[in-house]
Amino acid sequence: MARDTAVTRQKLLGAARQEFAALGVAGARVDRIAELAGVNKERVYGHFGSKDGLFAATVGAAMDELTEAVGTPGDDVAQWVGSVYDFHRERPELLRLLLWEALHHPEPDVVGEQDRAAGYSLKVDALAERLGLAPGPEAAVTLLSLIGLAAWPSAVPQLSRLIVGSHVAEGELGSVVRDCVVQLAGRMAGGGSASERAGSGHETAVADR
Amino acid sequence: MARDTAVTRQKLLGAARQEFAALGVAGARVDRIAELAGVNKERVYGHFGSKDGLFAATVGAAMDELTEAVGTPGDDVAQWVGSVYDFHRERPELLRLLLWEALHHPEPDVVGEQDRAAGYSLKVDALAERLGLAPGPEAAVTLLSLIGLAAWPSAVPQLSRLIVGSHVAEGELGSVVRDCVVQLAGRMAGGGSASERAGSGHETAVADR
Repeated sequence: MARDTAVTRQKLLGAARQEFAALGVAGARVDRIAELAGVNKERVYGHFGSKDGLFAATVGAAMDELTEAVGTPGDDVAQWVGSVYDFHRERPELLRLLLWEALHHPEPDVVGEQDRAAGYSLKVDALAERLGLAPGPEAAVTLLSLIGLAAWPSAVPQLSRLIVGSHVAEGELGSVVRDCVVQLAGRMAGGGSASERAGSGHETAVADR
Repeated sequence: MARDTAVTRQKLLGAARQEFAALGVAGARVDRIAELAGVNKERVYGHFGSKDGLFAATVGAAMDELTEAVGTPGDDVAQWVGSVYDFHRERPELLRLLLWEALHHPEPDVVGEQDRAAGYSLKVDALAERLGLAPGPEAAVTLLSLIGLAAWPSAVPQLSRLIVGSHVAEGELGSVVRDCVVQLAGRMAGGGSASERAGSGHETAVADR
């Protein structure tokens, strides 16, 4: 790809992320994205085919950043969940894109589905290996649930505030939720390995609180 | 409340749920809701004050239905999570309303906040008692996380499909995810009580799969 083409593409993806995260698929306007990127509107279609194509590329790029930042589930699955939690708190755009996508596309297919499924498949394999499971449905649902555990407090911040807000000092909500989410993740993931469960200290930490 | 007033209110709430769940707060139109309910538009403002007031009442009514259907966390916390999971799969409106609310109101306040917080507080207390915890931050985050565990697969169905879809036969996704979510919930909640953990059989079930 020629350098100016790559630069244009990056500019468009940056502007699209801002527009789609704020307004969703239906609310976003391609001409506003082009203007924000300082690029001719026609080039959007040249690069991405359609608004849906641009949205898919935007989600894909944001997802790549998450994977780069947090990697696949490693030796300490609970700490991996903590990293995913931090990512979503610090960079809310990806989660907003996923929620807009869910609200916009209830039907069962997503543009760019294969690449995204392949990315998750690597994470399922890593988690399965870590937990001593076959890479099958259980490992897949466990990955889905660990991601949910990490993402949920930022996906619905109003629920975090309504449920936890009265129990913690203002400004400490994020870190209190994080600590507890990491503990719960350890307990959830620990089920796959008795020795890890016994040695993790999570239950002791809970009992001490 | 006079009967015809109560009936009008119910009609408006039903129409509002449909409109808000489909289109969100920004996309919904009060005149369309009034028309759908067969009620004069002015009465919407008489009953609910504003579109935000109507949205808040709509969320409150949907939340009351959830609470009526699933109750507070009882003796078997994992089965309670299963009931919450079923509710969201069978009646997607409440979850859609909560996602729209999250996307629309990133700022820290929600109309009708006190009633909703009080409702969650009862559930935190019930869960704390069940798990032998003080009704504090840990119990609150555990409730938030158990709700997330139950709701997440329906909140982002595209992720459920991308992550779990290749591992299960079509049409079985919902029940496979449910079984595993209930197991994971048992493991998460079991941490609060060693005797329950030992007797729950969840780990055996996992190891047998």
